[in-house]
Amino acid sequence: MFFIIGLGLGEAEDITVKGLEIVKKAERVYLEVYTSILTVGKEALEQFYGRNLIIADRDLVEQGAHEILQDANSKDIALLVVGDPFGATTHTDLVLRAREAGITCKIIHNASILNAVGCCGLQLYSFGETVSIPYWSESWQPDSFYDKIAGNRRRGLHTLCLLDIRVKEPTLESLTKKRKEYQPPRFMSVSEAAGQLLEIISRRHRDHKEFAYTGTTLCVGVARVGSDTQQILACTLQEMKDADLGPPLHSLIIAGHLHPLEVEYLTQFSESKEKLLQIAKTS
Amino acid sequence: MFFIIGLGLGEAEDITVKGLEIVKKAERVYLEVYTSILTVGKEALEQFYGRNLIIADRDLVEQGAHEILQDANSKDIALLVVGDPFGATTHTDLVLRAREAGITCKIIHNASILNAVGCCGLQLYSFGETVSIPYWSESWQPDSFYDKIAGNRRRGLHTLCLLDIRVKEPTLESLTKKRKEYQPPRFMSVSEAAGQLLEIISRRHRDHKEFAYTGTTLCVGVARVGSDTQQILACTLQEMKDADLGPPLHSLIIAGHLHPLEVEYLTQFSESKEKLLQIAKTS
Repeated sequence: MFFIIGLGLGEAEDITVKGLEIVKKAERVYLEVYTSILTVGKEALEQFYGRNLIIADRDLVEQGAHEILQDANSKDIALLVVGDPFGATTHTDLVLRAREAGITCKIIHNASILNAVGCCGLQLYSFGETVSIPYWSESWQPDSFYDKIAGNRRRGLHTLCLLDIRVKEPTLESLTKKRKEYQPPRFMSVSEAAGQLLEIISRRHRDHKEFAYTGTTLCVGVARVGSDTQQILACTLQEMKDADLGPPLHSLIIAGHLHPLEVEYLTQFSESKEKLLQIAKTS
Repeated sequence: MFFIIGLGLGEAEDITVKGLEIVKKAERVYLEVYTSILTVGKEALEQFYGRNLIIADRDLVEQGAHEILQDANSKDIALLVVGDPFGATTHTDLVLRAREAGITCKIIHNASILNAVGCCGLQLYSFGETVSIPYWSESWQPDSFYDKIAGNRRRGLHTLCLLDIRVKEPTLESLTKKRKEYQPPRFMSVSEAAGQLLEIISRRHRDHKEFAYTGTTLCVGVARVGSDTQQILACTLQEMKDADLGPPLHSLIIAGHLHPLEVEYLTQFSESKEKLLQIAKTS
């Protein structure tokens, strides 16, 4: 059988008891390190599980399905992924390939930022479409997520912005070479995301009032959700640009219409209660 | 310290290792049985944890915060909730009360239907606002969720419909009495939800093409997600009305714009591949 096991928010103990039992007994266990990141390293996980893990990087997950699934019709093979198994399209694709090969699949669910973001007090049912904010390069600066944020804001909904993760990205120069070279890993911070969002509206020469958001819009930055070093900050988008929430992973929420209970909850993540109330009023 | 621990999708082994360690050591552990349901009973959990649990029903959670939080500034008290702790407003409120009383809170996240619904192959990033479909009574038949589904569909987004759960609802007759009497628990099925959704459009006398959905719209019903008896069915809304996915909990998804990979994944949950392709084409 082929198992895809969600590791939750990234600490070793975030795995479910069900997941841990499978990890202990499986023939081979792959650790996916491409669509998200762990807050602990591979070694810490191996020690916690009492077994060795095989790293599944981007190349292996996207092109080596055959290798991962080998013998899975007679033995138990597991793939560990941060968050919930269906957070990334690659995993859906892997399940399809397994089923085509007649291999039974079982998914072990876990928390992901999509529901854990509720930790900031914004109601999960008041979120609209989730968007992804990619790193810009000199020649590629997409901003299609702007219209999605605008659509959510028009309907009074909050927007969860997932921030870019670049792990094992080949350098442009090595793309045509046999031996690929990789860029150092990058994780977009709430500060970088805020800067990019502000850059987008400064480029759009319309009346300021028509914008999906402005520098004074209430935002919430979350970092390392679920870990002991979790940080949450509620402030304006302009202030978020200068904020430092420490190491990855970060996510940014652009608030929509706020319920009084949401405002009350957010005050604890603001410089002062009065300030948060002021931002919420004018946001 | 006060812990709110997510139990995930409802089986005993769905708790995280982190959560289980806290449950084993805590002074008192409450089991919330009001905003969702377990697929196992209290006794099975007690046996699995090796300790006794205190049932926290609607009255206790909403009015007995003081009782739950007693001694939490010096001892570890835990509240277990199905899914993720921030799935329901009641829990946010409980955290606020704890903080007001100077009690440190820690949240142990877990899977909830909001991310586990990805098991049907519809991409989580293509979902719009989540809606709740309540049971109708003779005098109270709200349909405000219709406009939210319409908004999602217009933007090509899928809609996750959470279906009503009625646990420990006082009977109308006993509302004014000292000793409350309760209705038997009810859990809305995908069939009941589909019937109600169809009833709404039959009541709206507009041109059929303007409707947010019709009887031929592609829907996905999911039941007991994450358990060994999980069931998924992809069919038209009209067919869903006659479907039986067995015991609770059920959730219903109204599909928006479909990506080819989503269609391919859904075929396994349909009567036949050809039929699913046909529904997806005209949906």
